[in-house]
Amino acid sequence: MSILFKNATVIAAQDGNSVLYNTNVLIDQNKIAYVGKEDKQADRVIDASNKLIMPGFINTHTHVPMVLFRSYADDMVLFDWLSTIWPLEEKMDAEIITAGAMLAYAEMIRTGTTCFLDMYNFEEEIAQACVEVGLRGVLSRGLVGDVKDGMPKLQENIDLFNKWNGYKDGLIKVAFAPHAEYTSTKEFIAQCVKTTKELNSPMHIHISETKKEHEECIERHGKTPVQYFNDLGALDTGLLAAHCVYVTEEDMDILAQKKATVMHNPASNLKLASGFAPVQKMMEKGINISLGTDGASSNNNLDMHKEILLASIMHKGYSGDPTLLSPSQALKMATVNGAKALGYDNLGMIKEGYKADVIMIDLDKPRYYPRNNIESLIVYAGNSDDVCLTMVDGEILYENGNYNTLDIDKVNKAAQQALDKLTSKS
Amino acid sequence: MSILFKNATVIAAQDGNSVLYNTNVLIDQNKIAYVGKEDKQADRVIDASNKLIMPGFINTHTHVPMVLFRSYADDMVLFDWLSTIWPLEEKMDAEIITAGAMLAYAEMIRTGTTCFLDMYNFEEEIAQACVEVGLRGVLSRGLVGDVKDGMPKLQENIDLFNKWNGYKDGLIKVAFAPHAEYTSTKEFIAQCVKTTKELNSPMHIHISETKKEHEECIERHGKTPVQYFNDLGALDTGLLAAHCVYVTEEDMDILAQKKATVMHNPASNLKLASGFAPVQKMMEKGINISLGTDGASSNNNLDMHKEILLASIMHKGYSGDPTLLSPSQALKMATVNGAKALGYDNLGMIKEGYKADVIMIDLDKPRYYPRNNIESLIVYAGNSDDVCLTMVDGEILYENGNYNTLDIDKVNKAAQQALDKLTSKS
Repeated sequence: MSILFKNATVIAAQDGNSVLYNTNVLIDQNKIAYVGKEDKQADRVIDASNKLIMPGFINTHTHVPMVLFRSYADDMVLFDWLSTIWPLEEKMDAEIITAGAMLAYAEMIRTGTTCFLDMYNFEEEIAQACVEVGLRGVLSRGLVGDVKDGMPKLQENIDLFNKWNGYKDGLIKVAFAPHAEYTSTKEFIAQCVKTTKELNSPMHIHISETKKEHEECIERHGKTPVQYFNDLGALDTGLLAAHCVYVTEEDMDILAQKKATVMHNPASNLKLASGFAPVQKMMEKGINISLGTDGASSNNNLDMHKEILLASIMHKGYSGDPTLLSPSQALKMATVNGAKALGYDNLGMIKEGYKADVIMIDLDKPRYYPRNNIESLIVYAGNSDDVCLTMVDGEILYENGNYNTLDIDKVNKAAQQALDKLTSKS
Repeated sequence: MSILFKNATVIAAQDGNSVLYNTNVLIDQNKIAYVGKEDKQADRVIDASNKLIMPGFINTHTHVPMVLFRSYADDMVLFDWLSTIWPLEEKMDAEIITAGAMLAYAEMIRTGTTCFLDMYNFEEEIAQACVEVGLRGVLSRGLVGDVKDGMPKLQENIDLFNKWNGYKDGLIKVAFAPHAEYTSTKEFIAQCVKTTKELNSPMHIHISETKKEHEECIERHGKTPVQYFNDLGALDTGLLAAHCVYVTEEDMDILAQKKATVMHNPASNLKLASGFAPVQKMMEKGINISLGTDGASSNNNLDMHKEILLASIMHKGYSGDPTLLSPSQALKMATVNGAKALGYDNLGMIKEGYKADVIMIDLDKPRYYPRNNIESLIVYAGNSDDVCLTMVDGEILYENGNYNTLDIDKVNKAAQQALDKLTSKS
């Protein structure tokens, strides 16, 4: 199957500030086969005039089934929040997880996210639902505990890796996710590191999200979380470090030297009052920065448009410097930087030979007029609901109000029923 | 004409945390005639199941025609930005202003804003366009200069007042807007104050938006902008104070005592790197806080949903306290507090006898599932494009993709042409 997007505006998310106009984009099977002015034959031609073609958003930090706790426990200090959520998480089963995953995927697909990095449990169900709807996912089983009680979880993550890693040429990949310094023993983390080295898989860890976490790690180990994990070898196969709000100058140097990615979570860091990650400084040090929504219970949605907007404006306001973080930089964080983080060298740009994870945005709305700078319009003025087509690996998952791989009414209802079941007194 | 919204979820924005379920809302002419469980007869019945009825958003600080400069000059320090915009503003004429106003109104209507407070020039054209589309507007001519060159502008504002203030029982009102301390002489501001007292009209002023403005005022006058304007009597007929990022403890006491409203502009304060207004402290002192988008050239849209979200999360992140500013408080800022600011005692709630400025939001989207706390869902997870009906003064201006009082294709095109004209070399 080949599809030609004809006469589009294209944000290529390539190096430099490349916006293309009146451009044709040909998709052949699951690849971008051509980007340019020539007319091409295709099985289907889609008129993309007054529409924007760009790479799908890559959400590099989330906890998929936590959509079920959306708006369940807001505006609490962390401990109160955890005490409210944990008893519900204890009651989750495969069916509930699947209902949550499907709701999360429906929201991602509708708002232009084509790829995500997850950390949770029941990742087998999360993988199956992901394949069912056709999204691209990098999955990691949250690992907590000591060598004794953690090992079955690690084994789950290994089984997940053996079954799914590399599925359909990278539609599914698997990472390993020691949750954080404060939730595992040193010995268990060493065991996780050993496994990831054997399997050459990246590690996905919460690092220095809160001041408390950062300072208590120093108290316990005499070093920061970055230094602690580095000394344990956790940065050697590629670190995916979520948050990094409180990293030090020395931490940043280590992250840069080890070619780690920092996944910045603007909405979650603001809503949970975690703080302002030193994004500009990390960029100056050459650290790869990508974006994530975190779980929807601390966001409260999975809308990557919100993250590009927040990333662009929150650091300006906090630093007092309005020239920080351009729309172009924010768009790269949400696309090609995420692809790089997750080990894809042919994803996150509209470029010949790249994977066909593509979204189309309808520009015929007041917020996109007049048309001065298209990247600015998308980031500062845009809205996720203007996504009118979402394609992953060459397959159209959503188009003009219609989902092709899920029944949205069923998904919405099942999610409500799942929460009702979790919160019922019985 | 009467309209019954049947079986709705209602956020009443009343005191307390009042959400009503399975509720009927009857509109009769331009008023809310009934809110409750009884079935009512009406000329038209709208099924509002799985939909939310709430008061329309009230955008209490904007510069309507500046939508034309959307994405034209981003990420600049203030002086560079002004130097880029001013030459274009010099070239504006009535036709260009009207094109800008119509684009702004189309965006407001689509995203659920039913009332706004404007400050710009060509307010006569802005009023005419407002009446044409049917929005509720409080208009003020930006006043700058000295007694000599400022007086014709003040006369314009007086003419505007005489022609429009109180039009259609308050569909249009007029305020007086000395732009800021640094753009007028003391003598001219005194003249403006004299006029507003004679006409018993509120004053709309930029106050302590930037550190520079605040500190230079102290250097010039030995007092802060709030104290300077207070000593000139500008707080005596109702002050509408935009921004107030750098107000002192003493300033806040004055604002509270004089029953001023502070219009908080979250997106603009972040994007222009102005800073974080002490919103929590002002609320504790009993100051009425409403929300505004500021002009779209420093935002870059007129989407009040973005402002309720930002107001809710930015102060949490900045203060380190996640319990600050609940969704309910943010919703009040965007509705009833705005109405109070603008001198309406029967606007901004879904309440019998109140003006029928009402929006309907489609809740049948993944982001509104599962349904734990409806106010949280609207503020943290919601999206302005879920507004499916916008009514002002009992008239439906927008419904399910269709504008009833404007031709959206013409409006979008005219806005582009207006900017092209402004930026053409000829």
